Amino acid sequence: MQVDHRKGPRRRGEVLEEAIMQAALAELAEVGYMNVSMERIAARARTSKAALYRRWPDRAHLIVDSYVRFVVDDVDIPDTGSLRTDLMVLLRQLANVITSPVVMMLFGLLVDAGDNGELRAVIRERVATLKPVLISDILERARARGELRKPLTRRQSTLPIDLLRNEVVQILLRDGPAGEIPDSTIEEIVDEIFLPLVRA
Amino acid sequence: MQVDHRKGPRRRGEVLEEAIMQAALAELAEVGYMNVSMERIAARARTSKAALYRRWPDRAHLIVDSYVRFVVDDVDIPDTGSLRTDLMVLLRQLANVITSPVVMMLFGLLVDAGDNGELRAVIRERVATLKPVLISDILERARARGELRKPLTRRQSTLPIDLLRNEVVQILLRDGPAGEIPDSTIEEIVDEIFLPLVRA
Repeated sequence: MQVDHRKGPRRRGEVLEEAIMQAALAELAEVGYMNVSMERIAARARTSKAALYRRWPDRAHLIVDSYVRFVVDDVDIPDTGSLRTDLMVLLRQLANVITSPVVMMLFGLLVDAGDNGELRAVIRERVATLKPVLISDILERARARGELRKPLTRRQSTLPIDLLRNEVVQILLRDGPAGEIPDSTIEEIVDEIFLPLVRA
Repeated sequence: MQVDHRKGPRRRGEVLEEAIMQAALAELAEVGYMNVSMERIAARARTSKAALYRRWPDRAHLIVDSYVRFVVDDVDIPDTGSLRTDLMVLLRQLANVITSPVVMMLFGLLVDAGDNGELRAVIRERVATLKPVLISDILERARARGELRKPLTRRQSTLPIDLLRNEVVQILLRDGPAGEIPDSTIEEIVDEIFLPLVRA
């Protein structure tokens, strides 16, 4: 596809990068993981393929960066004074993140690019390591308020997020990639599993 | 590929079906999900494509059936007289099932064939509904022995299996499709999460 990207004002630096990353996510949502190409993203962002390749070596790196910038970084860590409320607010946000088209695509990437250790490392470093951090702040504040029974193991600390991640698989089975995690699921994770296990 | 499947003794019924299903799994393990074809499976099983299509409408149905026949049906439900031992034995078996190449492929299928509701229904009905049954026998016997604190909700009952399913995602991130679930993970699920939550 030939696009005259010289039309419109010239964008540089962060402005151009954000436009490219937004185009990558929009393209992903529209054409699906198998059909995303650097060429189509460049066209949608009204820039050149060269401008993309100067910043990202391939579509995988670009899409992972876009995901971190526009999906993960938007998650707020709540501080409401109550462990239960903090958990509900955080998990509702993560439920939206985790069922976004980008994440569904990352699942596909992980399976297809199974032997591509470098790609896996990119996804792992940029995405997977972010989430335990989100809940540890909430748990530290709960501990300071005396809401926790005793020190938690690492597996106990990440339990709500592990169960949310499992829901993505369930949703793929039940509803396909357009599925959502209902509030009732989040309430069950918090009230039937996590709080009975850890609450003082 | 042209294969003369008239060589060798003529197989019928179950014998031929098993040969085809074994060929499907072997083919899957060898060439990967994207490259499995009815033609290659027929060649490997030394039969005709027509013999496959008489029994299965497409490769998805064939592969799901093969998975149920050779992977899921091999799981034994332990009855050792101890909830903890029963759980460890069951989860070790399921850990092998869930990290088999077939399951890794099902993840890919679920993502790629996202809009294919019929395929999703096949996978759901034949595979996903099997697992809660496996643990419910173990929990009923533990209840009869007085090992459980109180009646469990559905989400509490399936917790060990939900956490095992989450590990598949973790493994894909860490090690790729060839990864395995270590025993230490199963012990953490049982001893740090499930037993403290449910044991009397």
